[in-house]
Amino acid sequence: MSRNTDRLLSFASAPVVLSGAAVVGKAEGEGPLRAEFDVLHPDDGLRSKSWESAEAALVRQATTLAIKKAGLENQDVGLAFAGDLLNQCTASTFGLRGSDIPLAGLFGACSTFALALLLAAMAVDGGYVGHALAEASSHFCGAEKQFRFPLEYGGQRTPTAQRTVTGAGAVIVGRGGEGVRITKGLAGKIVDLGVTDAANMGAAMAPAAKETIASFLKITQTAPSDYDMILTGDLGSVGAQLLLDLLREEEGLDLSGVHADCGMLIYDAGRQDAHAGGSGCGCSAAVVSSFVLRRLREGTLHRVLFAGTGAMMSPLTTLQGESIPAIAHAVLLEA
Amino acid sequence: MSRNTDRLLSFASAPVVLSGAAVVGKAEGEGPLRAEFDVLHPDDGLRSKSWESAEAALVRQATTLAIKKAGLENQDVGLAFAGDLLNQCTASTFGLRGSDIPLAGLFGACSTFALALLLAAMAVDGGYVGHALAEASSHFCGAEKQFRFPLEYGGQRTPTAQRTVTGAGAVIVGRGGEGVRITKGLAGKIVDLGVTDAANMGAAMAPAAKETIASFLKITQTAPSDYDMILTGDLGSVGAQLLLDLLREEEGLDLSGVHADCGMLIYDAGRQDAHAGGSGCGCSAAVVSSFVLRRLREGTLHRVLFAGTGAMMSPLTTLQGESIPAIAHAVLLEA
Repeated sequence: MSRNTDRLLSFASAPVVLSGAAVVGKAEGEGPLRAEFDVLHPDDGLRSKSWESAEAALVRQATTLAIKKAGLENQDVGLAFAGDLLNQCTASTFGLRGSDIPLAGLFGACSTFALALLLAAMAVDGGYVGHALAEASSHFCGAEKQFRFPLEYGGQRTPTAQRTVTGAGAVIVGRGGEGVRITKGLAGKIVDLGVTDAANMGAAMAPAAKETIASFLKITQTAPSDYDMILTGDLGSVGAQLLLDLLREEEGLDLSGVHADCGMLIYDAGRQDAHAGGSGCGCSAAVVSSFVLRRLREGTLHRVLFAGTGAMMSPLTTLQGESIPAIAHAVLLEA
Repeated sequence: MSRNTDRLLSFASAPVVLSGAAVVGKAEGEGPLRAEFDVLHPDDGLRSKSWESAEAALVRQATTLAIKKAGLENQDVGLAFAGDLLNQCTASTFGLRGSDIPLAGLFGACSTFALALLLAAMAVDGGYVGHALAEASSHFCGAEKQFRFPLEYGGQRTPTAQRTVTGAGAVIVGRGGEGVRITKGLAGKIVDLGVTDAANMGAAMAPAAKETIASFLKITQTAPSDYDMILTGDLGSVGAQLLLDLLREEEGLDLSGVHADCGMLIYDAGRQDAHAGGSGCGCSAAVVSSFVLRRLREGTLHRVLFAGTGAMMSPLTTLQGESIPAIAHAVLLEA
C-alpha cells in the first residue's frame, strides 16, 4: 500500500491533451495574451441576463470549442471534470446543462483546473473513459458581487488584491494521438499558516504551492532546471515572490528563471489596474488551455510543471475570522 | 474510444470498502437508524462557535473514525474525495485541514457521496493510490441559514420540503482485503425538466435518478430484481414516488419492492416533523456508511445499486428564476 508520503500519481499511458479552448472577457482580451485566446468577448455581460449566466455561457462556448477542435462530438466525451467559484458551482452545472456529458463537479477554488486535469488524466489513463473534459471558469463581476462588494459600490482594492479573470478554459484529454502529454500529477494537501486577509490570497496560497512543488521535485528526484517552466495557478506578484522566497529559504530550491504565474501573465497589471494580477478558476484554465499548450505544441516549451493554487475560504468563513486554507494541485505537461 | 452512450465505469479489481463511519446530530440520533450510527451528538452545535465549524467537526470525527476502523493512519490515505453543501465547500476543507491527506474537493449537492465513492474506486482500482477516503457532510442549521431562512425566523416549511441531515459519512476504499466491493459505477448527466420550486427538490431530482438508474440497468442488461436494493440518495417521499412512476411509465421498469431512499430511511417523517424526508450531502453519506454497509457485511443485503441524487441550484439561481438542474451518480456495492 502506498503511503501518501509517496503520493505521486503516475499516468503510465501518458494521456494526451487533444485540444484546448479559452474564451475570455474584455480585460483579458486587452491583456498581453490577447492573441492566444480563441474568443475575446468585448462585453463581459455576453448579452446574458446575469453575470452568472454570462459565466455559464463562457463554459458552454469553451466546451463546444474544445470538443470541436478535438474532432469529437459531445457524446464522445465520457466524463467532464469542471468547477468554478460561484456558490454551488452553478457556472459549471448550468454551462454543461444540455450537453449530455456526464459531470463530476469539482471544487478547488483557483486550483480547480489543475485538479480537473489530474482527474481527467486518471479517468483516461485508467481506461474508464475514452475522452474526458477538464474545465474551469470564473467571472470578474460575479466574483466581485459574491466575494467582495457590488460593482456599483466602487470599492477600492488593496495593492495585494487580485483581479478575478472573466474566462473559461477547457481541454479534451484522450488516450493516444498527437499532442501534449500528462505524465504525472500530485494532489495537494490543505496548508494553512494563519493568513486571514482575503485581499491577500497570494500570501495564503504561497505555502501550499511550496508544499506541492517541493514535494513533487523531491519525489521525482528532479531539480527546477529539469523544467522549462514551473507555472503556478495564480499567486499574483505578491504570492509569487513569497513562493520564491519560501522555496529558497526553507527548501534550498531556486526557481528564478523557470517560474511563471498565470495571474501575472494574463494582465499587464500596471497598465490594466489589476493590482497583484489575475485570479479565479478561469485564470489558469484560460492560460494553460491556450498559451501554455501552444508553446508545448510548437516546441518552445518541452516540460511544464503546472501547480494550480486555490484559496479555499468563503466570504462567511472570512467574516467568522477564520484563516484561509490553501491548496495546490500539480500536473506535469510534456511535449 | 468509448461513446458516453456506453458510459459504464467498471472497476476490474473490485475495490473494497474497508470501513465506514457515520457521525450525526440530534434528530438523526432520535430516528429509526439511531442504532446504526457511530456517534450521536445530543446537540447539533457540537460546542463549536458556528454551525459551519460544527459541520467541519463532524467531518473531522467521521474521517478519524473511518481511518481508525480500517486499521490505518492518516498518512496511509493517498487521496480524499470530499464535499458538502456550504458555499465554497468549507466543511470539507476546514474538516480535513490538518489531516495531512491530499484532497480532491467535489461538488455534487446531495449526490456528492456517490460521486466520491465513484472517484475513490477509480483512484484505487487504477492503482493511483493505495487507499482513498470518500466523504460528505451537511448540517441542518448551516443549510437552513444559507439556503432558506435564519432559524430564529421560524419559517414554515411546505410538505414537499426535505430536512437537511446533520451528519457526516466517510469510508475508506482500498485494494484487496475483506469487505464490500465497488464493482461498477455510472456518472450522471445534468437533467433539468424545468422545476423551479426549491422547496420540492425531490421533483427536480427524480428525472435525474430515472436517467441514471435506467441507463445503468440498460447498459448492464440487468433488471430491478437482480438487486436486493436500489437505493436513491435522498429523493424524499415526494421524489421517490415520482421516480417509481417515471420508471414504470417511461421505461417499463418496476422498482417497487426493491427501492429504498436514504431520505426516507433516516427519519420517521411524521413523528419527527421531517416533511418529505431527509436531504443534504450528509444524508446518503451517513446512511450508506453505516446501515447499508453493515447489511452488506452481515449478508442481509448482497447487491445494492446506490444512486446519489443532487439538486444543483444555488439560492441565487433560484432568486433569478432559473430551474433546478439535477444529477444522479450510481455505484454498485456488492457483498
